[in-house]
Amino acid sequence: MPEHWATSGVDLHLEPSGPGLRRGLTDALREAVRSGRLAPGTRLPSSRALAADLGVARNTVADAFADLVAEGWLTARQGSGTRVAERVAAPPAPSAGAAPRPREREQPAHDLLPGRPDLASFPRAEWLRAARRALTSAPYHALGYGDPRGRAELRTALAGYLARARGLRAGPDRVVVCAGISHGLGLLAAVLKARGVRTVAVESYGLRPHRELLEAAGLRTAPLPFDGLGTDPAGLADAGAVLLTPAHQFPMGVPLHRERRAAVLEWARRTGGLVLEDDYDGEFRYDRQPVGALQGLDPGHVVYLGTASKSLAPGLRLGWAVLPPGLLQEVADAKGGVDTCGVLDQLTLAEFITSGAYDRHIRAARLRYRRRRDALVAALAQRAPSVRATGIAAGLHVLLRLPEGTEPQTLRAAAWRGLAVDGLHRHRHPEAAVERCDALVVGYATPPDHAWSAALDALCAVLPE
Amino acid sequence: MPEHWATSGVDLHLEPSGPGLRRGLTDALREAVRSGRLAPGTRLPSSRALAADLGVARNTVADAFADLVAEGWLTARQGSGTRVAERVAAPPAPSAGAAPRPREREQPAHDLLPGRPDLASFPRAEWLRAARRALTSAPYHALGYGDPRGRAELRTALAGYLARARGLRAGPDRVVVCAGISHGLGLLAAVLKARGVRTVAVESYGLRPHRELLEAAGLRTAPLPFDGLGTDPAGLADAGAVLLTPAHQFPMGVPLHRERRAAVLEWARRTGGLVLEDDYDGEFRYDRQPVGALQGLDPGHVVYLGTASKSLAPGLRLGWAVLPPGLLQEVADAKGGVDTCGVLDQLTLAEFITSGAYDRHIRAARLRYRRRRDALVAALAQRAPSVRATGIAAGLHVLLRLPEGTEPQTLRAAAWRGLAVDGLHRHRHPEAAVERCDALVVGYATPPDHAWSAALDALCAVLPE
Repeated sequence: MPEHWATSGVDLHLEPSGPGLRRGLTDALREAVRSGRLAPGTRLPSSRALAADLGVARNTVADAFADLVAEGWLTARQGSGTRVAERVAAPPAPSAGAAPRPREREQPAHDLLPGRPDLASFPRAEWLRAARRALTSAPYHALGYGDPRGRAELRTALAGYLARARGLRAGPDRVVVCAGISHGLGLLAAVLKARGVRTVAVESYGLRPHRELLEAAGLRTAPLPFDGLGTDPAGLADAGAVLLTPAHQFPMGVPLHRERRAAVLEWARRTGGLVLEDDYDGEFRYDRQPVGALQGLDPGHVVYLGTASKSLAPGLRLGWAVLPPGLLQEVADAKGGVDTCGVLDQLTLAEFITSGAYDRHIRAARLRYRRRRDALVAALAQRAPSVRATGIAAGLHVLLRLPEGTEPQTLRAAAWRGLAVDGLHRHRHPEAAVERCDALVVGYATPPDHAWSAALDALCAVLPE
Repeated sequence: MPEHWATSGVDLHLEPSGPGLRRGLTDALREAVRSGRLAPGTRLPSSRALAADLGVARNTVADAFADLVAEGWLTARQGSGTRVAERVAAPPAPSAGAAPRPREREQPAHDLLPGRPDLASFPRAEWLRAARRALTSAPYHALGYGDPRGRAELRTALAGYLARARGLRAGPDRVVVCAGISHGLGLLAAVLKARGVRTVAVESYGLRPHRELLEAAGLRTAPLPFDGLGTDPAGLADAGAVLLTPAHQFPMGVPLHRERRAAVLEWARRTGGLVLEDDYDGEFRYDRQPVGALQGLDPGHVVYLGTASKSLAPGLRLGWAVLPPGLLQEVADAKGGVDTCGVLDQLTLAEFITSGAYDRHIRAARLRYRRRRDALVAALAQRAPSVRATGIAAGLHVLLRLPEGTEPQTLRAAAWRGLAVDGLHRHRHPEAAVERCDALVVGYATPPDHAWSAALDALCAVLPE
């Protein structure tokens, strides 16, 4: 049940015991600023005091403050504390009769956050047909406790698909099914920690949840330099492993340069270090055949991580790791010695792949996303010529380079309009020695078809001219 | 690929890098003894030496030896090492033309291992119908990354079902969906450890994987006394939490005595300790209405853990924890802040419950298992009068008390016949201060209907007369 917390005289509607507390706090504070309940210039209590008031961890409050400072809602200055920012633009007057959107947090008016495919185009009918065939033909003991690596049917289907589509070299016995890339990475983090690894090199820009997951396992993450050729493996020496997105750097959108691919593998062979290849959207390249996976060049030193979250839907909670032989037992043990992914979805995905439905779905999705990317690039050229779409024509997102210093105001303008979109700063490693760069990370695959053009309009409207 | 290890002149067919290594090693050694390749009296290498030969952890070898000693295949004596036991009975001569059973490990001739329902009676058609309804009506955003607590539809359906069937008191907001009880227990172990808990009290007899899971999280497990009234909560003082199977102790088959239920809750209220209630088979009671869950008496101090693994199938990988409010955020965080269970199965189970199909399935299963239990008790009375079925008429397993000292020979006889069944010794906490007790733990729900009477025959044939 929501409770009302009186804070600086402002009620924050929060569910203090529910999950997503940090996000809830961030949203509640943002809403208080946006609605004017917290007036410009108001000084907020210290994170320590507010945390004590709310009965939450101080870090939760500090993180929420940091996010809102980055978005431009709050300002923080040494000595003068955290204050509500002076507005650069007045909030748009609500149109007459506009209904409140109580679940706005889950459903923004326009959603261009990266990381999700178009969920409305999930092939429901084909999936149900595959489920019927799979469940009808499965032996009854398939429904029991399973091999920690996952169902043999799915591992076989994946090994074939990955060899064909991504150039992998490994049989089904090297595939471990997991509940998405994060789950696979969590298992590997536990294994690396148990092996005595201390530091995992990561990219200067990358997914914060992945970094946090490595750190939660007790590993240090060390950012690699990033330049015009992409991530630079110089400085890998100390690391026991490196996490990379070689086919399509997230979020910068470039592939790992040929010479740097070679340098990473050379490092792995020389030091015995492990390369963790996050191939989250490797199927989606629009201008040419995708670059093959690193794993195909050196299956003994590369762990390949793939997922159905971008190709089908995150809700399936199905991903896969393809491992060097020496890691299989440890990863299976880290999984608790049993299969942790639902058998029915595994059998269904196996049937979906072997029947050809997966390839058909990918082809259709590739066409849909390519058209959206082209439309976005064309719209930018016309409506926001100072903004540059960078990176290769691939994947589900594009990086939009903004004029220097304009990222916070652009994010703020987007928030006013109910447009959910990411700023690049969110994805920067806190210790990264890279120049500050203003940009948006736009997930053009996210909205359903019927909402796409309105989302694109909203995006163009908030971009600097 | 299987490799051949030359060990004491005997080839063990092992997959040294695959999962299930310990089980594989145990099976390979048992097979070597059974086939005569390892002759009676042969001294085995030390676990250290064999571990080095095989390139595996010494504990793996020591555990395999311990299992085989307990089963009577090997003998271990201080000073004279581990030897192949002198046979008490010759192996049955293979019947002419009997085909080898290469996958015997997965598919024993007769399977009465506890812990699984009759998988052949999984309601495939009803499940597929529910899946179609669920997937057809789900909003597209249900397929995205979800609430770490799981889908609201399922949490709502479960809260209603558990209130009705098990007397729970908690709304949907307190339910967290997980991939089975082990997954839920693993999350709680991480939370307890992070809260500074050192010791979790457990039952003297219980599931070894659960104990190992707590220990892997860095918690000590301390066994509680067990007597004629069941588990005795005296001696809980030091523990930060206690793991219990109150409705139907596993494997002993008795419920937690009324006074002891009260004592456990009194301890929890006095010390702030947490009660982890493993209600793995609470739906299955054949002589009367099941005793309600402890959680209903004190929702603020009890975590309720339930599962679809016994009521439907382990392959679904769906379980649920019902939490006191103060734990929700920590458990959601331990889950990594995202839903880790497949959405499609969650939506399908929600539909399956709300449509009444779940109750119908449970009623049919209850009747099936009750008949099997009755048949087993009747067969014992006639064919093995010295063996006593103990515990209440409930659940999917029964404890068969054997004449003193006859457990190892009974297990050995079962192995000769290809009958998979558990000895009680496997489930005993190594530090438990309880008298040794010879018994079998028989999972009468495990075989499909067509294999049940042959399995019962095989069981009666190996029991002491």
